[in-house]
Amino acid sequence: MTSTGTGAVPSTMRASVLTGPRTLTVQEVPVPECASDEVVIRVAAVGVCGSDTHYFRHGRIGDFVVDAPLILGHELSGRIVAVGTEVPATRVGERVAVEPQRPCRRCRQCRAGRYNLCPDMEFYATPPVDGAFAEYCVIRTEFAHTVPDTLSDEAAALLEPLSVAITTMRKAGVVPGSSILIAGAGPIGIICAQTARAFGAARIVVSDPVAERRERALRFGATEVIDPLDTDIATAGLDVDAFVDASGAPAAVMAGIKAVGPAGRAVLVGLGSSEMPLPVEHIQNREITVTGIFRYTDTWPAAIHLAATGQVDLDALVTGRFDLEHAPEALESDLDPAGLKSVVYPVSAPASVSAPASAS
Amino acid sequence: MTSTGTGAVPSTMRASVLTGPRTLTVQEVPVPECASDEVVIRVAAVGVCGSDTHYFRHGRIGDFVVDAPLILGHELSGRIVAVGTEVPATRVGERVAVEPQRPCRRCRQCRAGRYNLCPDMEFYATPPVDGAFAEYCVIRTEFAHTVPDTLSDEAAALLEPLSVAITTMRKAGVVPGSSILIAGAGPIGIICAQTARAFGAARIVVSDPVAERRERALRFGATEVIDPLDTDIATAGLDVDAFVDASGAPAAVMAGIKAVGPAGRAVLVGLGSSEMPLPVEHIQNREITVTGIFRYTDTWPAAIHLAATGQVDLDALVTGRFDLEHAPEALESDLDPAGLKSVVYPVSAPASVSAPASAS
Amino acid sequence: MTSTGTGAVPSTMRASVLTGPRTLTVQEVPVPECASDEVVIRVAAVGVCGSDTHYFRHGRIGDFVVDAPLILGHELSGRIVAVGTEVPATRVGERVAVEPQRPCRRCRQCRAGRYNLCPDMEFYATPPVDGAFAEYCVIRTEFAHTVPDTLSDEAAALLEPLSVAITTMRKAGVVPGSSILIAGAGPIGIICAQTARAFGAARIVVSDPVAERRERALRFGATEVIDPLDTDIATAGLDVDAFVDASGAPAAVMAGIKAVGPAGRAVLVGLGSSEMPLPVEHIQNREITVTGIFRYTDTWPAAIHLAATGQVDLDALVTGRFDLEHAPEALESDLDPAGLKSVVYPVSAPASVSAPASAS
Amino acid sequence: MTSTGTGAVPSTMRASVLTGPRTLTVQEVPVPECASDEVVIRVAAVGVCGSDTHYFRHGRIGDFVVDAPLILGHELSGRIVAVGTEVPATRVGERVAVEPQRPCRRCRQCRAGRYNLCPDMEFYATPPVDGAFAEYCVIRTEFAHTVPDTLSDEAAALLEPLSVAITTMRKAGVVPGSSILIAGAGPIGIICAQTARAFGAARIVVSDPVAERRERALRFGATEVIDPLDTDIATAGLDVDAFVDASGAPAAVMAGIKAVGPAGRAVLVGLGSSEMPLPVEHIQNREITVTGIFRYTDTWPAAIHLAATGQVDLDALVTGRFDLEHAPEALESDLDPAGLKSVVYPVSAPASVSAPASAS
Repeated sequence: MTSTGTGAVPSTMRASVLTGPRTLTVQEVPVPECASDEVVIRVAAVGVCGSDTHYFRHGRIGDFVVDAPLILGHELSGRIVAVGTEVPATRVGERVAVEPQRPCRRCRQCRAGRYNLCPDMEFYATPPVDGAFAEYCVIRTEFAHTVPDTLSDEAAALLEPLSVAITTMRKAGVVPGSSILIAGAGPIGIICAQTARAFGAARIVVSDPVAERRERALRFGATEVIDPLDTDIATAGLDVDAFVDASGAPAAVMAGIKAVGPAGRAVLVGLGSSEMPLPVEHIQNREITVTGIFRYTDTWPAAIHLAATGQVDLDALVTGRFDLEHAPEALESDLDPAGLKSVVYPVSAPASVSAPASAS
Repeated sequence: MTSTGTGAVPSTMRASVLTGPRTLTVQEVPVPECASDEVVIRVAAVGVCGSDTHYFRHGRIGDFVVDAPLILGHELSGRIVAVGTEVPATRVGERVAVEPQRPCRRCRQCRAGRYNLCPDMEFYATPPVDGAFAEYCVIRTEFAHTVPDTLSDEAAALLEPLSVAITTMRKAGVVPGSSILIAGAGPIGIICAQTARAFGAARIVVSDPVAERRERALRFGATEVIDPLDTDIATAGLDVDAFVDASGAPAAVMAGIKAVGPAGRAVLVGLGSSEMPLPVEHIQNREITVTGIFRYTDTWPAAIHLAATGQVDLDALVTGRFDLEHAPEALESDLDPAGLKSVVYPVSAPASVSAPASAS
Repeated sequence: MTSTGTGAVPSTMRASVLTGPRTLTVQEVPVPECASDEVVIRVAAVGVCGSDTHYFRHGRIGDFVVDAPLILGHELSGRIVAVGTEVPATRVGERVAVEPQRPCRRCRQCRAGRYNLCPDMEFYATPPVDGAFAEYCVIRTEFAHTVPDTLSDEAAALLEPLSVAITTMRKAGVVPGSSILIAGAGPIGIICAQTARAFGAARIVVSDPVAERRERALRFGATEVIDPLDTDIATAGLDVDAFVDASGAPAAVMAGIKAVGPAGRAVLVGLGSSEMPLPVEHIQNREITVTGIFRYTDTWPAAIHLAATGQVDLDALVTGRFDLEHAPEALESDLDPAGLKSVVYPVSAPASVSAPASAS
Repeated sequence: MTSTGTGAVPSTMRASVLTGPRTLTVQEVPVPECASDEVVIRVAAVGVCGSDTHYFRHGRIGDFVVDAPLILGHELSGRIVAVGTEVPATRVGERVAVEPQRPCRRCRQCRAGRYNLCPDMEFYATPPVDGAFAEYCVIRTEFAHTVPDTLSDEAAALLEPLSVAITTMRKAGVVPGSSILIAGAGPIGIICAQTARAFGAARIVVSDPVAERRERALRFGATEVIDPLDTDIATAGLDVDAFVDASGAPAAVMAGIKAVGPAGRAVLVGLGSSEMPLPVEHIQNREITVTGIFRYTDTWPAAIHLAATGQVDLDALVTGRFDLEHAPEALESDLDPAGLKSVVYPVSAPASVSAPASAS
């Protein structure tokens, strides 16, 4: 039991721990300490992100290296079961979606409202900070966002990738009437297409070389799709207001930026190599702005609105459900071309969890 | 004599015409027609820009190809000697600096205030539009900006590159207290350093591999200089708010963007190859914005203020003066490492014109 | 027949002319001249705006005084029947919505992209510029916006007040998740409520003292309504991100601004007296931004998208239809509390035009 | 001595305490506790602000009521003499300027970078939070800004009103070439004029009905001055880009906003009545933006740059110096029309302190 605050929590919990390359072990570990301004959450659902899979397979992303046991998972929903001494006890029992970051609140970036760029950030599932493939986790109270009962646990967990898409649309400057090209019809591309529609984009072009992924894009907001193997996107005269790369593929980025019209914007979301050739002359002659995104600030309220009103359908994205023992299969599920988004249930898998069955 | 409007202008004039690779010929050509909303300017001084030299040497810049005789020169001052029928006759006699562009005024870009990006732009000294190495030129009345008598003809001509620098500072977001890194201490780098100071930048770092150019930068606004051959700019911990490339060198661009701090901006002004490798991961992780500039909008009033108040010293930039016959020498003067900016006097060279002497 | 360009147009037309206080006369007048960059439009439908009614009743709005016969009407759709010499003949036959303004294109405001603030603006139905209660009108080709066949003539005409609402939402900074308070459930308030929803507002509060107008607001986008006679809006703790006044009532403006939260915005659309007391201390302590709107720039493309996709329902706004002879009744129809928007058909009234019948 | 952190501080100190209407008493009071993230500052100089005088005379400002003994003073410099446990001991000995606010860091406003609007703000000399008319004070380490030795104690203290001016210029959108009208040549108006010049304003008009105050304005940055009793500012055709009210006078605000050109901005800094009539029709027709300021965020670095480079001369503003016993005289010194800014020295008055002499 925690000695601080309100609510009852055991001292240990089950968690899926990354202990080596492609090695996850379900272990009994201590429940994290709850600081005075934090809440303890009993985890309901955890989405699997490409970064989780990357750590699982490669043990690092850029400069972030896994050199000690690490709990993955940062897209999550749950219920508050205990609160720190500074948090009203009335929060116990709330269903929440977690904004999985802990900025320092004090540095220049935090003071400027860019807490996502805080150099002292502690972010879930980024070494050495544990994530949410576990029965419990803790987060500051202001980052445990109450969700309405109409939102499923899965949708509440997927407010995190929706937050990525909202940040992307903001940086892409998408407003009612905008045109946008999105490269890549994977999970982020699909959520971006839906979010672009919700932001009012009039023309939403999605490019992807796989036919069934293009068809999926049409179901999720795209107004037209392009096969980049058939059409030279750079010279097709798209002249879009905004380009979003959700592919990480250098050829897609090069062509996509060339498809942007005067004074347009390009936002690079897909992760690729550390360097990439870009069409500098085109960027100059059209005064195009190129940027990237790194996490998010102040997105959950908007995300909850978009999901709760059905403008973005998060439930429809889920194509796989797994319990804690099958977290490795969840992490490998990106290899299934028909799969889009997998969810791990660390505590109690609902009836609909198919993974144990499919895995047996 | 023009048949429209007010003022007397001859029907022909002397001009330096680019007729082939590295071939300029002084010819008698027709004075351009003055439309009803235009003014005729007797040219005083014309700055030589790198793009003039590039056309002279290579006959093209990117997609713009010189395939007919062309008059170069687009940085100019002069005096209004005649006006079109819609222009008040009182403008005759005014000393002016020319904003050398003629946008269509009707397209989406023009209507949005981005007339620099007008796809139907007619820009001086860009094929097939003639420039100002000639006794006369015409421009719309609103782009003939009256200058105070305290500004010399040369300074008035160099309001054009100052406009480039002002546009750059605006896009770089330089405000009082900003820090900025400028790569390259050539004409644009030097004017950018001065302009950064006028915009309030507190820290102005200029990098250049040539010692005497670094010394020059210190005289023109730099608060510190770096030799990129000695110091690894990418890892020197500069963390500047803004980076401006005025070098066109891929290595300088790569290192410069890496020197930008969180949420900072990079503006690529130097012209180089059409593609260039950029540090995408760094751009993403720090949410850096990368863009370029293409000409300018609404800069002459600010430029006149900065030059007239001495916040930017344009006269001190001039290191060579040439008459029309010596325009080729003016265009080649960039080969002199001690040179910074050359000026051509198409009509009457002042006593200080040194070129004929030095060329004899 | 016009002597310029393509297409056949008669030399005279029928028009409803304001010749004195509350006096409209149907006259045969010359069809306006079509300049080389203009198109001639056979008018289909014309919405009645409060400003039309104000000129009809009072002969002036602020400094704009009707001192010569004037044709009213500036919300219109129609079909291009002739074009000027610079306009492609292929435009003849297009169904269009008209952006009823003719800026000078040359002044500082036009060059900055703020052509709505052009001091030399010629605006439809603003003395001495004629409007569209007539069989034909002319407009520059770029301001004749092609509409899809799925948009009715009435909806196409009402893209003009929708443009007012789009401008308002832009200035109000409404984005997905925003909260907004709108004072007044008349035509502009109702279109603003719909547009706020299309811009993603999560909470849309409409205040109006009339119960049936509040009910109407709920059908058109409001998520909640307030009777300002029952509730003190200033102290109700709304703390909205944005306030839009569409009432012109000083008490509503005072209370509405007090309902705005920190760093929020207030946009005054309703026209009232030239001066009004505002809560300055509240504006300072919360750093609220207060502004107004004056016409629009670059709104028709977004308006067409919102109307064509059904995000804003313009057809449902129309509560009265009139032929040219009954224009006075159309202008007085604001006295009917059940009425919302009247439309005049200058050429051929469709079967659904009820006014002649109801007026007989 | 404090038990936490590094450095030696006594347990009590001398302070000037506001104990009733116009009643200040020098008392021995406890030195405030230093939290783990704070520093203890031995106070050097404290500027007197109009709000200090207002509390002294009236016991309240709007909703903020002095109902317990309060230490005034919030413009201050000093030296760090002790630090909390989380602060590096190396900070002891630094000369600093204090940003006198303690936001909660957690609320929506703080997370958005608008910590000045934090509803849980603790601000110096605002009931019930004590200020700096005392030997010591504490502030969070990030709000104790190190100043260079070239800045005097007085200039370092006056970085606070300079921060007000910087915030004002930011909200007024002043950039190189701007025109600005400032109403009122008191301390804030004078600092705003200097700061406008430093931000690059080309035309700086200051209005004040007192001749000697207008002359002072010309010495501190104004390019021209106006006597509002002689000239009708509303109709003088100024058409400025920005208007700043530093007078609090309703007539000046009304006229000043009418002097703003299309798309211009008005920033109300002067404090007056809670409501004020504003020219709404003018605001609408020109789409002027009106706002106010409330304290500041992220201004000290820019302020230090402007003061240290001499672009803003803070030392020249000081017209009176007082020791702690003469704080009442300092607070009343605004009655002297020749006075501009008074400074209180709580610890040791320098030789130049004239107040005791002049008060004896």
